[in-house]
Amino acid sequence: MSQQDHTIINPPVLQRKVLITDCADAQGLIAKITSVCFAHQLNIIKNTEFVDHTQGRFFMRAELEGQFDDERLLSELRAVLPTQNRMKLVDMGKKRIVIMVTKEAHCLGDILMKSYYGGLDVEIAAVVGNYDVLQPLTEKFDIPFHYVSHEGLNRQEHEQAMLAVIQPYETDFLVLAKYMRVLTPEFVSAFPDKIINIHHSFLPAFIGASPYKQAWDRGVKIIGATAHFVNNLLDEGPIIKQDVISVDHSYSAEELAHNGRDVEKSVLSKALQLVLNEQVVVYGNKTVVF
Amino acid sequence: MSQQDHTIINPPVLQRKVLITDCADAQGLIAKITSVCFAHQLNIIKNTEFVDHTQGRFFMRAELEGQFDDERLLSELRAVLPTQNRMKLVDMGKKRIVIMVTKEAHCLGDILMKSYYGGLDVEIAAVVGNYDVLQPLTEKFDIPFHYVSHEGLNRQEHEQAMLAVIQPYETDFLVLAKYMRVLTPEFVSAFPDKIINIHHSFLPAFIGASPYKQAWDRGVKIIGATAHFVNNLLDEGPIIKQDVISVDHSYSAEELAHNGRDVEKSVLSKALQLVLNEQVVVYGNKTVVF
Amino acid sequence: MSQQDHTIINPPVLQRKVLITDCADAQGLIAKITSVCFAHQLNIIKNTEFVDHTQGRFFMRAELEGQFDDERLLSELRAVLPTQNRMKLVDMGKKRIVIMVTKEAHCLGDILMKSYYGGLDVEIAAVVGNYDVLQPLTEKFDIPFHYVSHEGLNRQEHEQAMLAVIQPYETDFLVLAKYMRVLTPEFVSAFPDKIINIHHSFLPAFIGASPYKQAWDRGVKIIGATAHFVNNLLDEGPIIKQDVISVDHSYSAEELAHNGRDVEKSVLSKALQLVLNEQVVVYGNKTVVF
Amino acid sequence: MSQQDHTIINPPVLQRKVLITDCADAQGLIAKITSVCFAHQLNIIKNTEFVDHTQGRFFMRAELEGQFDDERLLSELRAVLPTQNRMKLVDMGKKRIVIMVTKEAHCLGDILMKSYYGGLDVEIAAVVGNYDVLQPLTEKFDIPFHYVSHEGLNRQEHEQAMLAVIQPYETDFLVLAKYMRVLTPEFVSAFPDKIINIHHSFLPAFIGASPYKQAWDRGVKIIGATAHFVNNLLDEGPIIKQDVISVDHSYSAEELAHNGRDVEKSVLSKALQLVLNEQVVVYGNKTVVF
Repeated sequence: MSQQDHTIINPPVLQRKVLITDCADAQGLIAKITSVCFAHQLNIIKNTEFVDHTQGRFFMRAELEGQFDDERLLSELRAVLPTQNRMKLVDMGKKRIVIMVTKEAHCLGDILMKSYYGGLDVEIAAVVGNYDVLQPLTEKFDIPFHYVSHEGLNRQEHEQAMLAVIQPYETDFLVLAKYMRVLTPEFVSAFPDKIINIHHSFLPAFIGASPYKQAWDRGVKIIGATAHFVNNLLDEGPIIKQDVISVDHSYSAEELAHNGRDVEKSVLSKALQLVLNEQVVVYGNKTVVF
Repeated sequence: MSQQDHTIINPPVLQRKVLITDCADAQGLIAKITSVCFAHQLNIIKNTEFVDHTQGRFFMRAELEGQFDDERLLSELRAVLPTQNRMKLVDMGKKRIVIMVTKEAHCLGDILMKSYYGGLDVEIAAVVGNYDVLQPLTEKFDIPFHYVSHEGLNRQEHEQAMLAVIQPYETDFLVLAKYMRVLTPEFVSAFPDKIINIHHSFLPAFIGASPYKQAWDRGVKIIGATAHFVNNLLDEGPIIKQDVISVDHSYSAEELAHNGRDVEKSVLSKALQLVLNEQVVVYGNKTVVF
Repeated sequence: MSQQDHTIINPPVLQRKVLITDCADAQGLIAKITSVCFAHQLNIIKNTEFVDHTQGRFFMRAELEGQFDDERLLSELRAVLPTQNRMKLVDMGKKRIVIMVTKEAHCLGDILMKSYYGGLDVEIAAVVGNYDVLQPLTEKFDIPFHYVSHEGLNRQEHEQAMLAVIQPYETDFLVLAKYMRVLTPEFVSAFPDKIINIHHSFLPAFIGASPYKQAWDRGVKIIGATAHFVNNLLDEGPIIKQDVISVDHSYSAEELAHNGRDVEKSVLSKALQLVLNEQVVVYGNKTVVF
Repeated sequence: MSQQDHTIINPPVLQRKVLITDCADAQGLIAKITSVCFAHQLNIIKNTEFVDHTQGRFFMRAELEGQFDDERLLSELRAVLPTQNRMKLVDMGKKRIVIMVTKEAHCLGDILMKSYYGGLDVEIAAVVGNYDVLQPLTEKFDIPFHYVSHEGLNRQEHEQAMLAVIQPYETDFLVLAKYMRVLTPEFVSAFPDKIINIHHSFLPAFIGASPYKQAWDRGVKIIGATAHFVNNLLDEGPIIKQDVISVDHSYSAEELAHNGRDVEKSVLSKALQLVLNEQVVVYGNKTVVF
């Protein structure tokens, strides 16, 4: 929405960027950082900080507006920050994603539809599937679909084939919209903190296969879904977003799965929105969601 | 899902129907009704009752399976029920709907997408719009779109033109997916208890125009959406389903509207699912949702 | 509330009981059961059924009103039911519970307060603690508190001492309101399907000790609580009720625990209400909650 | 919790205060304010800002720690702020409240119990009721109860009698825990932005009397509660917190009220916690909740 405010309250010549900083906590950090921004005549549209007092770590996200001299800004900021800081200055413009799928349509369909009507501000560069089931749906929206079957290939060979298709798109993020194969560390390491997965359970409950069957066997009264970044441990990456729905004894395992789909798709698209807005900072195996 | 259980656990020759009954409360009603069904060798797959003790009214919904002699069944049931009863025996097969729209895509898009991947078991016969904005989206899914502009027509003339387009489809239900014009009693009376509308507020709060602006002005901390049958009073029909999301001071009126869309579409499709399943009984200005 | 309706619409001489039945599924069960009730001139105030089609099991709960000849009613019902049925006919009057605690006051306090103002219709016979911390709070409400320290006793000896205190109260249910010691199979077997525990996590996530610390380490975005019957496997009993709250990165482990308390107490008292109303049927390691 | 962190990570000689500022938006405000704080060697434990771009208004809340020279700090801040600013520098210590009640126990009981076990960090100076029904409950917790009947008094006389009892306590906030009489502007003006009320509906729905009866008549599927500051318009003050629960056709008006109590009490105590933490800023007829 800030884009809209933008067009309302500012001349179009101004740029808008997000500055994300984290470093060891110290006194005066906000004053020092915002003073540098002020000296650059950058207007702070929105600012959030967080201090993890258990680890003595400071996090800050600022939406800045003005004319940017990135290099000078970052070096002047670096000069006032403790060593071992991390800084990221990114444009707030539209991001590009590639979506990986297998056979289920609901998560892909939701992202396609939301981006079509502007519910999600993203450029879908392509969809890649290890089955071609979702090709017709993808092409309804004039988005290229790449069918990369795993048939007759070992995992490495298949991932190489996927990479060959994905990398030319220079994607900002890779979205696993119910992509049902485990990725190798090699593949994951090609997209550090850039792969977003939706797991169809309320992690860490029901890790691994058939979570709805597991949930039904256990007789839970609530089911959920979890969107997380992918690292090298199955279903163990930093969690971005979770949500749940209530169920009861009358649901069969199939009905749990059927109803769970709505949570899966909404959690994935909410997580994706947060990531696209540069509101998510990965720190260790957790996220700070501003 | 019962359809699925059906195909799993029963020979295909059996039919499945829903019997919905309501009448003055009396002793032994369940015994009498279920005994008649038993005598017809109908298996009760799912049964729910409700007694409104304040009004002394009995409601029952039974999913029946077997071979049906509708006429004999209903007359034998009528014989055991108090007078002034209402009975409805309907097939559980797929229903046909027509969707009316104006310009906003999110509710239409959600229904189109869900029916495409089987999240909603419905036949969308056509989409009718007073603008042609949503024609391309509709046609992606190979569904006919009828553009019936209100330009230069008075309300009656426009509704006559709509009716001329809609009636040939012999629709089971008419879904107003953000159709932004008020309907006349004449139009509504052509579809008694068959028109489902989504109102973008938590009724009865913020009746009428610009509910999100009203909500922002009032500074509410929660916004919602309401799906209801349409009767002749604006936003006053029997409520089928409501849901809400939390918001805070940082939301502009535009952001409230933007975030509200997700609730609108999910409430409408949940309400539609209930109606398609014959789980909703209208009684006075309320609904019994089994 | 049905009690209130009762006093409104019926002469006080009538009794109200709950009949809970489960047996192998078969055609005509509802007709047969309700016909027997009708023959006994029992009015069915509220009736619910559930069929587990995967296991071919039928469950029914009926709130009956009239004059009861329990023995004849049950034998006539048994005559029409498949073999291997279970039947339970219980009075809807106020139940008696004993509460076991350790040091935390929030769950005990909520039950004490709710029963004081009528939010929970229950007779609290006594509170038993392995510490005396909660004695003053309990006695504010004129309820006997038994301090049974585990100091210097082995588990068996301590449980024997607890049993000696608890059993004379002939409690309907035993509520573990943050009782922080694991119970032995011997103790549990003395109260089959009668011990209700609150676990401070969203089971099966974070089984065992320090769930909030576990949740913090994992960086979850939602925490929850689970009320379940106690069987012989730690945190593995049939789940009655679960609920969750959203959290974020800014919560310390202590803040998770602090905020989790509200969910713990509300989940426990909701589960207790369901159990007191005879709405919960244990079946295998699951519950049917009518 | 910050209190706890405090005792962990800082020497006890340091004070902790909250600085709340709002003023016309301008460039560099955060830099200017935090620089002044830094010059005073005040550590910023937690900082939040909000800009209402539609009104060009800047809001900031900072939890500061160190040694305070309040007067100098405020004057130096005033010097860097635009004119027509508002500043508030308050100690983070425990606040004192007086609770006004009529006959219903659930909200009062929840606050009494939570403050007893530390779930709410507040000093309850006294409870004042226009009936004496809640005197025994209050006195269980060794808190003075003042019975100020309205019998035979007109509204002004009754409020004068209430004021005479309340004012000596020099309360920080006045909590209306189901106090069922309308207050006059005179009374309200004696406690500007200091009176917190719980309304038993999801405002602005069902303003005024018998909201649960209104909700039942309307057949809503969700009911709620609203905590707000009291101004001179009935149920129209700035909203602090709202929450809802789902209901269905089977609830009588009495059951709606019964179940609504749990929402009322939790919304009121959450709103009270926010107010006690100095997280709520009243601006016009809205609140900014940091």
